[in-house]
Amino acid sequence: LAAVPHYPFKDEIKLRCTELDADGRIFTSVGEFLKSEICQRQGLHIRDLGKLIGGFSINQMPVVIVRPEVILVSLGPHIRALIRSDHIIFFDSPDSKDCVEDSPFVKYLQGKLKMSTEEAGGQPFEFRALEAIFLSVVASLQVEMEVLVRIVSNLLADLESKVDPFKLKELLQYTKKVSRFESKTLLIRNVFAELLSQGKPRAMEAHDEIEILLEAYMKQVEEIANVTAIVKQQMSSTEDFVNVTLNVKRTQLLLFDLRVAMGTLGLSSGAIIAGLYGMNLQNYLEHDPYAFSIMSATVISVSAITFLACSFKLRMLARGTSWIS
Amino acid sequence: LAAVPHYPFKDEIKLRCTELDADGRIFTSVGEFLKSEICQRQGLHIRDLGKLIGGFSINQMPVVIVRPEVILVSLGPHIRALIRSDHIIFFDSPDSKDCVEDSPFVKYLQGKLKMSTEEAGGQPFEFRALEAIFLSVVASLQVEMEVLVRIVSNLLADLESKVDPFKLKELLQYTKKVSRFESKTLLIRNVFAELLSQGKPRAMEAHDEIEILLEAYMKQVEEIANVTAIVKQQMSSTEDFVNVTLNVKRTQLLLFDLRVAMGTLGLSSGAIIAGLYGMNLQNYLEHDPYAFSIMSATVISVSAITFLACSFKLRMLARGTSWIS
Amino acid sequence: LAAVPHYPFKDEIKLRCTELDADGRIFTSVGEFLKSEICQRQGLHIRDLGKLIGGFSINQMPVVIVRPEVILVSLGPHIRALIRSDHIIFFDSPDSKDCVEDSPFVKYLQGKLKMSTEEAGGQPFEFRALEAIFLSVVASLQVEMEVLVRIVSNLLADLESKVDPFKLKELLQYTKKVSRFESKTLLIRNVFAELLSQGKPRAMEAHDEIEILLEAYMKQVEEIANVTAIVKQQMSSTEDFVNVTLNVKRTQLLLFDLRVAMGTLGLSSGAIIAGLYGMNLQNYLEHDPYAFSIMSATVISVSAITFLACSFKLRMLARGTSWIS
Amino acid sequence: LAAVPHYPFKDEIKLRCTELDADGRIFTSVGEFLKSEICQRQGLHIRDLGKLIGGFSINQMPVVIVRPEVILVSLGPHIRALIRSDHIIFFDSPDSKDCVEDSPFVKYLQGKLKMSTEEAGGQPFEFRALEAIFLSVVASLQVEMEVLVRIVSNLLADLESKVDPFKLKELLQYTKKVSRFESKTLLIRNVFAELLSQGKPRAMEAHDEIEILLEAYMKQVEEIANVTAIVKQQMSSTEDFVNVTLNVKRTQLLLFDLRVAMGTLGLSSGAIIAGLYGMNLQNYLEHDPYAFSIMSATVISVSAITFLACSFKLRMLARGTSWIS
Amino acid sequence: LAAVPHYPFKDEIKLRCTELDADGRIFTSVGEFLKSEICQRQGLHIRDLGKLIGGFSINQMPVVIVRPEVILVSLGPHIRALIRSDHIIFFDSPDSKDCVEDSPFVKYLQGKLKMSTEEAGGQPFEFRALEAIFLSVVASLQVEMEVLVRIVSNLLADLESKVDPFKLKELLQYTKKVSRFESKTLLIRNVFAELLSQGKPRAMEAHDEIEILLEAYMKQVEEIANVTAIVKQQMSSTEDFVNVTLNVKRTQLLLFDLRVAMGTLGLSSGAIIAGLYGMNLQNYLEHDPYAFSIMSATVISVSAITFLACSFKLRMLARGTSWIS
Repeated sequence: LAAVPHYPFKDEIKLRCTELDADGRIFTSVGEFLKSEICQRQGLHIRDLGKLIGGFSINQMPVVIVRPEVILVSLGPHIRALIRSDHIIFFDSPDSKDCVEDSPFVKYLQGKLKMSTEEAGGQPFEFRALEAIFLSVVASLQVEMEVLVRIVSNLLADLESKVDPFKLKELLQYTKKVSRFESKTLLIRNVFAELLSQGKPRAMEAHDEIEILLEAYMKQVEEIANVTAIVKQQMSSTEDFVNVTLNVKRTQLLLFDLRVAMGTLGLSSGAIIAGLYGMNLQNYLEHDPYAFSIMSATVISVSAITFLACSFKLRMLARGTSWIS
Repeated sequence: LAAVPHYPFKDEIKLRCTELDADGRIFTSVGEFLKSEICQRQGLHIRDLGKLIGGFSINQMPVVIVRPEVILVSLGPHIRALIRSDHIIFFDSPDSKDCVEDSPFVKYLQGKLKMSTEEAGGQPFEFRALEAIFLSVVASLQVEMEVLVRIVSNLLADLESKVDPFKLKELLQYTKKVSRFESKTLLIRNVFAELLSQGKPRAMEAHDEIEILLEAYMKQVEEIANVTAIVKQQMSSTEDFVNVTLNVKRTQLLLFDLRVAMGTLGLSSGAIIAGLYGMNLQNYLEHDPYAFSIMSATVISVSAITFLACSFKLRMLARGTSWIS
Repeated sequence: LAAVPHYPFKDEIKLRCTELDADGRIFTSVGEFLKSEICQRQGLHIRDLGKLIGGFSINQMPVVIVRPEVILVSLGPHIRALIRSDHIIFFDSPDSKDCVEDSPFVKYLQGKLKMSTEEAGGQPFEFRALEAIFLSVVASLQVEMEVLVRIVSNLLADLESKVDPFKLKELLQYTKKVSRFESKTLLIRNVFAELLSQGKPRAMEAHDEIEILLEAYMKQVEEIANVTAIVKQQMSSTEDFVNVTLNVKRTQLLLFDLRVAMGTLGLSSGAIIAGLYGMNLQNYLEHDPYAFSIMSATVISVSAITFLACSFKLRMLARGTSWIS
Repeated sequence: LAAVPHYPFKDEIKLRCTELDADGRIFTSVGEFLKSEICQRQGLHIRDLGKLIGGFSINQMPVVIVRPEVILVSLGPHIRALIRSDHIIFFDSPDSKDCVEDSPFVKYLQGKLKMSTEEAGGQPFEFRALEAIFLSVVASLQVEMEVLVRIVSNLLADLESKVDPFKLKELLQYTKKVSRFESKTLLIRNVFAELLSQGKPRAMEAHDEIEILLEAYMKQVEEIANVTAIVKQQMSSTEDFVNVTLNVKRTQLLLFDLRVAMGTLGLSSGAIIAGLYGMNLQNYLEHDPYAFSIMSATVISVSAITFLACSFKLRMLARGTSWIS
Repeated sequence: LAAVPHYPFKDEIKLRCTELDADGRIFTSVGEFLKSEICQRQGLHIRDLGKLIGGFSINQMPVVIVRPEVILVSLGPHIRALIRSDHIIFFDSPDSKDCVEDSPFVKYLQGKLKMSTEEAGGQPFEFRALEAIFLSVVASLQVEMEVLVRIVSNLLADLESKVDPFKLKELLQYTKKVSRFESKTLLIRNVFAELLSQGKPRAMEAHDEIEILLEAYMKQVEEIANVTAIVKQQMSSTEDFVNVTLNVKRTQLLLFDLRVAMGTLGLSSGAIIAGLYGMNLQNYLEHDPYAFSIMSATVISVSAITFLACSFKLRMLARGTSWIS
């Protein structure tokens, strides 16, 4: 029992909180906060806050939590938000130095949020905030996918025309990136699916449209996941192709190696005859006027015959492949 | 937060709209449209239109959306239609130069749509339009499948009788094509399955037949998907076979290579004896009348014995394979 | 839009229709029929008929369609039947020349169908016809499976004792056959499962037994699918084994090749010394009486030392494998 | 149609029936029975009996069938039982020569069955019989799993320290055995799951405990299946490891082979110089007193330089691996 | 039947029981217990106890059993607890020598349990005990995951920069560990999911919060499982990469080997000419003053031409790879 680990929660956390209210005004506060204090002020349970800002780990799973008074959104490293009926708070790592007020996302969001309910077609504040966030998340996935697809397609085309170890190494890096991207996409898809299966958030009960919205964004994420899956299949096809190509190449090289070895064997079998007549022994042909020509011809013939006999055998072995015609 | 991307919708789109009304008349208009305007005129939400004509990307997922007044169909690059109770509009890329009026599909559709409800067995306009589209989509999948199956079967038969690097490269291309085709088929199948699970479209509530229709087309798409899956399995079997064949071939070549190397070793072991007697040193056999014959025989015997000893060892190693009998 | 393919139905089809009525009488008619006419006479929709006899393609999916008045059964190339409350019609390709009347299946079916309802334990005509067909389909799968299992088991046993390229090629053929058989079995299983989930056919509402019947045949088909899955696993295990065996074999051959190359190297390093003394240069040992013996010993020693040094290095490299002890 | 196979049931079967009644008495009868007779006497349908004793094939799927009056249990080659409210009959192959009465399973069962309902905590006869059978089946799986795990673990440990072709062959055998065992375990698990989903057998309606019993045994079977799955993963990891080890080994051997070939090349390039001076041609150094030393040094230098140049090239090629330091 | 194994339960078990009551007091008792006695005292069924402490096997599946009066928790080797409304008993192997009273987990638990219901926000005793256990289990998984991820990431980075057989062997060990960890994580996840699907334990009916608690911990376990799955994918990518790298490496070495062999062949083809003039035969050039120079040039030219011809052939073969430029 003493071996059971025990890790109490750490209560302090460094945060940058950016609040946008219904008039589009921005309030930013940076510093060390107490989680318990945030929870008390926002009426949250410590567990919900943990899921929202849990250490800003990159492995944190995306999540949208709908509570009676508040919607918590954590969809990637940059979007961790808390949406209420009249304001939205973004939690950010205090280390990021970008100027929040000028980012196009915040500008767009300000525009959307400032609208009166009538202008927004009757959509309540939360709804508009959520839609802006979903739009941004899906657009970000889309861009990331397009970049990955373009780079990987080029890499695959290069590898199919020419096997290159550096390109292969790059391919490995992208295999990992595509896997991670696919995993991220599917997790976000699951968030949408879960929201859909839960029924609409209580805060928006009167709006049929939220389901259509969720479905639309889920479809887009599924489309992205689908393209990613096709890219993965093509990477794996190309990897198989490279392996089979190297196999074929090596078999061809082995065939040529054999020919070279056969040449060496042929010359050796001729050379041994020359070697015998090179011995300082009495071979009775020392003074034969034609011996040199005859023996030279013999040596070359033996070499050639050995080589040709081997070639014949090799041709039989290589049947069923198209490399010797 | 400033790192969050933000991509507003682009509103203009180049389109060719082909409208067929209940009398089979065709109206075509080409040009730049505003998505928002189309939506307003057709009573659509911008999101639904986006799913229908989203940039004409080839990665767009097939979808059939049933709204109270309208059915939206996007089933491949050529069929993006909007069906109402008395007309159907096809959206097309304006770049395609085909003459719409003369295509057999449009001719057939005109025939179907011109029928009075009585002639058509009580089928409403939408129903006939949908059926014509489904028929055309399934026929198109069928043809594509048959072409793929025929080419791939030939390729596989060729590769099984003779491993050829060019054929292997072609096989890779078809692996990718078959994967993409399978993915497309399954997505279309899912569209049918989703429609079936939603229950019949509201516009056709009175017709039991729509479910039977959907089921029938889904079965056909499943049949195509099934054949594709079998083809994929056979491609992967053949790839395994090629790899194992190359493995076997290389092992056979290695065996022969060894024999050649053993021949060279045998001749070298004989040659060294000849080499010793070739040294300009006193070997006391200089004048021996039989020395040449004896040494020649010795050299050849040593060569042969070395080779045979190696052959015996090789025979032991090659046990468990059928290449040395 | 002009690129959309369009394929109208072909209406003529060559058929052999074999009708068995409740008295076991057989009527056969061969010839060209119009699909539309058959449909009208039998009260079928053209789509249902298409699923039943669709071109006699071997890729056709098995299907059992239960309509209010009729049951359509298409379970393989030989069984495409239409069952009514008092007769059953088999559709067959007119090219098959077998004598239908004498086949044991038809004999058995005649026996079953001729029974009065009382004799048959209250089972209606359709029920008996269906059971006879299911029995025959399952028996046919069973026989096919047993043949496949027997052949494949022999092949695997042969390959495990001796890797043989011809056997490997045969294995590939059977991999494909087993895959196709598994696919067929699972499709038939799905037909039973679908029938079960639909509830009993309306024509047989009063009979609890139909569900038990379906379940029993489904279990048998599942048993066959299960054996097939085990066979597939064993084929894949054996393929892995062959690959690993060839890998091991090649490593062993490489080790031996190295030994041969080392022998050649050893002899070459000795031979170079002999070669030096074979030069027509003054080596001052020309008349030394022991030079020949000493140099011969030196040459042989250098050869042996070189070989042994290499052997020592090789032994170090081969650690972790059991081939050099 | 004539090609449709038809296989009537064979009615005779050789059986040994062992009956235990509620007093624990045993009646054994061996011989040839008619299936139809058994069915009539026991009130069974021929199909149910077929599932119970179907030819004693080892591929028979496990099954527990609950009928109003009787429970049929077929869970492996040794347990094919028919349980009624006051007795249990085991069907056995008549070839097994074991003495039934003395087996510990039967002894235990006798003890359980002899109890009065009060002693057994209100459990009816069928319940106690079922529990005894389940206990025995799960214990038997447990033992088989433990034996497999122990043998396979040893095999894997051996293979990881030393790649041995005989051990590899053994591993293949166990891969197959583990696959078959996993399949068996999952089929038995499915039997429990199916029973649970059906609700409790009608004969035991009053007893909540049957569900808890089934769940408990199902959990144990799942635990066994889970361990088996882990073992399979480890076998596949080790197989991958062996393949990668052989790959590494072969690359190392190839490196050494290259060194040997480079040595031979070096010596050949030296030898050719010696060969030139060995020609019976006038080289003008015949009487030079230092020529022999100089040429010998040249020959050896050329050999060494050739070898070192190749070594340098090889070192460049082998970068990225840890075998040349 | 006699072949059916039968394994009765063993009733004695060695245990250390640590009891914490609502006042945080600890009672420890070590020794041999009778399972049946524990069951009687705690009002448990023998099967439930078996699932809790079943032999302390490491393969035991995690389980949380909710009975009307008691909650049984078995979540790993260290946490096997029995929770009642006023005390909690931990079962432990008596061999562990740690001092239970001082472990941080027990200290934290004491603190939680000592609180009055008011202090604990209305949470009943069982609830607080469960939460403390879940917190500890998830924290333990988290730590184990982080250690695995850190080690494996380093290993993969090392292998990608340099293929090293020892690192590969280590990778195999971690493949197994990660598989086992993933399996454990998923089993614990399933426990949470099962609890959630069962609805809240009866003992806590009044508390909505238990579901939120379970969901929160399940999400955390899923996050851990998700990271583990990504790590597994990366390990498999790296393994593929190592294999492809070795393939490329071997092809490069084979190319170099060929060059060396071609060099040897070239020298042999030159050497045979020198060999011919080394024969003790009359070559009529014995006294030609330029013969030596001419023949030497010829020998070297033949060697070079042979080598260059082979190089040309090799260059043609190596097309499609980037290693010869």
